[in-house]
Amino acid sequence: MTEFKSKDEYEKVIMGLSVLPKGFKAGSIPITFFPKEKDLTEPLPMSLSLILLDRSTRDFAGVFTRNKFPGHPVVHGREVLKREFSRGVLINNKISNVRCPGGYEDIEKLLDGLETKLNINKGELFSSSTGIIGWNIPVEEMIEGFDSLEGSLSSNSIFDVSKGIMTTDNYPKVRSLSVGEGRIVAIAKGAGMIEPNMATMLVFILTDIKIDREDLREIFPQVIENSFNRISIDSDQSTSDTGLIFSSGLVSGISRDIFKESLDSLCRDLAQDLVRNGEGTAHVVEVTVKGCKNQGDAVKIGKAVVNAPLLKCAIYGNDPNTGRIVQAIGDVTGNENIDLDPERVTISIAGREIYNSGEFNLSPELESFLSDYLKDRSLSEKAIGYPEHFKNVEVVIDLNLGEFQTTVYGSDLSYEYVRENADYRS
Amino acid sequence: MTEFKSKDEYEKVIMGLSVLPKGFKAGSIPITFFPKEKDLTEPLPMSLSLILLDRSTRDFAGVFTRNKFPGHPVVHGREVLKREFSRGVLINNKISNVRCPGGYEDIEKLLDGLETKLNINKGELFSSSTGIIGWNIPVEEMIEGFDSLEGSLSSNSIFDVSKGIMTTDNYPKVRSLSVGEGRIVAIAKGAGMIEPNMATMLVFILTDIKIDREDLREIFPQVIENSFNRISIDSDQSTSDTGLIFSSGLVSGISRDIFKESLDSLCRDLAQDLVRNGEGTAHVVEVTVKGCKNQGDAVKIGKAVVNAPLLKCAIYGNDPNTGRIVQAIGDVTGNENIDLDPERVTISIAGREIYNSGEFNLSPELESFLSDYLKDRSLSEKAIGYPEHFKNVEVVIDLNLGEFQTTVYGSDLSYEYVRENADYRS
Repeated sequence: MTEFKSKDEYEKVIMGLSVLPKGFKAGSIPITFFPKEKDLTEPLPMSLSLILLDRSTRDFAGVFTRNKFPGHPVVHGREVLKREFSRGVLINNKISNVRCPGGYEDIEKLLDGLETKLNINKGELFSSSTGIIGWNIPVEEMIEGFDSLEGSLSSNSIFDVSKGIMTTDNYPKVRSLSVGEGRIVAIAKGAGMIEPNMATMLVFILTDIKIDREDLREIFPQVIENSFNRISIDSDQSTSDTGLIFSSGLVSGISRDIFKESLDSLCRDLAQDLVRNGEGTAHVVEVTVKGCKNQGDAVKIGKAVVNAPLLKCAIYGNDPNTGRIVQAIGDVTGNENIDLDPERVTISIAGREIYNSGEFNLSPELESFLSDYLKDRSLSEKAIGYPEHFKNVEVVIDLNLGEFQTTVYGSDLSYEYVRENADYRS
Repeated sequence: MTEFKSKDEYEKVIMGLSVLPKGFKAGSIPITFFPKEKDLTEPLPMSLSLILLDRSTRDFAGVFTRNKFPGHPVVHGREVLKREFSRGVLINNKISNVRCPGGYEDIEKLLDGLETKLNINKGELFSSSTGIIGWNIPVEEMIEGFDSLEGSLSSNSIFDVSKGIMTTDNYPKVRSLSVGEGRIVAIAKGAGMIEPNMATMLVFILTDIKIDREDLREIFPQVIENSFNRISIDSDQSTSDTGLIFSSGLVSGISRDIFKESLDSLCRDLAQDLVRNGEGTAHVVEVTVKGCKNQGDAVKIGKAVVNAPLLKCAIYGNDPNTGRIVQAIGDVTGNENIDLDPERVTISIAGREIYNSGEFNLSPELESFLSDYLKDRSLSEKAIGYPEHFKNVEVVIDLNLGEFQTTVYGSDLSYEYVRENADYRS
């Protein structure tokens, strides 16, 4: 899949990717509620989604935000992670259940009700929430929806859930891979960072490939580090970021290495989808930092470049303002005391060298080439509900000092980003 | 000075503050030139400014950017700083003289010409440049201007220079204080960060108070750290940031402590002016972080809050989106492993507590109060050439863990910021 002309065209492809691995069911339903924190005349909509394994599994893993004000579902999820078995995860959008009174008890009541309803073991479900910070989830209305939630479960597709977990996402994000007889499916929400307090990233990954709990718990954080921790839209880590992976274990004979490689590739693609899907995003910027003395330096430099507001604005305007790349590299290496020799650094955009031997190589021809390149890589605001393409703006920075390298992804900074984030509640 | 209704009203006040200390002259002239890096039909304008001591002084100090791609004037300035005497500084805007071929030799030629012209000792002048990165300064045209630059020198006022060093600054920035018979005058350029590659901060401070070189070199970095290093507009440190201070030594009898205190107060005011003067700035956000275990933690938390893009957008929209403050604090303390207990933290805006004992205190009344407060503290885009007021949005975060505290200043994030930075060269 490379270019799309309509939402239908995109969703057809995504539906094809959404086929569930063996041993899973998934479903999603809409409900409505009145929040107690605000006087409203119309109820708010919420989607309630469930991913359920046919049998409890030992083979599951999770990664949560490092934010020091974690949401109640994160605190609860860390407990579930310690348990012997899990059966899946209940997910809601609209309210994130963060720092509100009694939020933890709300989760216990909710999951206890669902486990009773489905007649499954107690304490084996995760809860995941994304939305407004500080408000309580509407427990009663959610419980009332359990009948129809159960009715929505299907072993065919995760497509409905990929849509149900969206908040301000522009389109659903699904990636999947077949590995031998097995299958890995991953869906994600965020991180367009558009609507206030909905900046959360949620990632749910399902596989029928047998992979031991201990291996999974070693592999999963490494894969997350190399994918979702290499993207940066607004440099925030939310109070609710969550990644969960479950294996039903029904397909044996695939090696740990093959599994890890497949998962890694899947997650890197999905991470780029997250960057691309922000409503305000007009360019995905891919910065490869090479020749570093260690991995940490490469990550710091890459993130500093994709997070530099002046550079982000210039890229949005298709302005190849190369000085701002140098400024961002010089800033972070100066502040963090990272080794760098300005005479040895080379910088390329779209494969064209713009800086080497301590000096810029600027010319009217290069300027015009780069401006055309940025235009070609841009996404239109008119593409509602689908991405037009998967092209990135490719920047390569080589320090020529060592063997370490990494690639990070970020978005540009658009009017739309400011508008969405300034006007939401006014 | 508190509120202004017009540019004239503001400039009248600024002119009053611009009276030079004893022992200094200053002047500024316009010149024009054709850059060799770009084909243009109209010449570009540049201001050439000079601050000159009547006699060489031993008592001067400087602080430069930590950016690892320093401009040629910074590299040159570090050499002048080592010398026994200085006589002042030559300043140009429009081109920053960074990473262009032969830029260091350009400075030597320029200053040699000026020192010969003025018949002063060789090697005692600093050079300071701000503007486009990668281009060469027009040495010939600048030298041709020396006659009229000398003619512009006056011992009355630094007002013309405060305007001459502007690039995209919305208005000139001057602060001064009388201390006994002595006087300190400070001017600054930047850091509105609006026009591409002109994000540089330049600060020049003149005093007739006698203060020894050694004391000055100990005091000046501390004062800069406590003022200009406590502001953050787009989290970049430019390739050319420069602060210089000169004492003519004509007024004796003022203690080192009194001098330091006065300089500190002056620089904190000027630093806030820099934040306020950005074209896109609609609010100055003042974040005080208290109760930290050490000073470094307080600075990191404060900067994380004023740099959080989602919070900056919300404040621009007069939206009291309090969840984003918690998100930013939780993010930086998690990432940097800073001690924090969510149950002990308190957060106030405008003196009203919005979070304590681990939970938000949100209500429709508080929301409406905060929204009105943000509107009252906003700056209008229509105020061209002057600030309407000096009010800040005051946020206080108390970790309740220790004795350390600091205050940092930042701006909001506006459409105008994106527009200026996206469209400049397209």
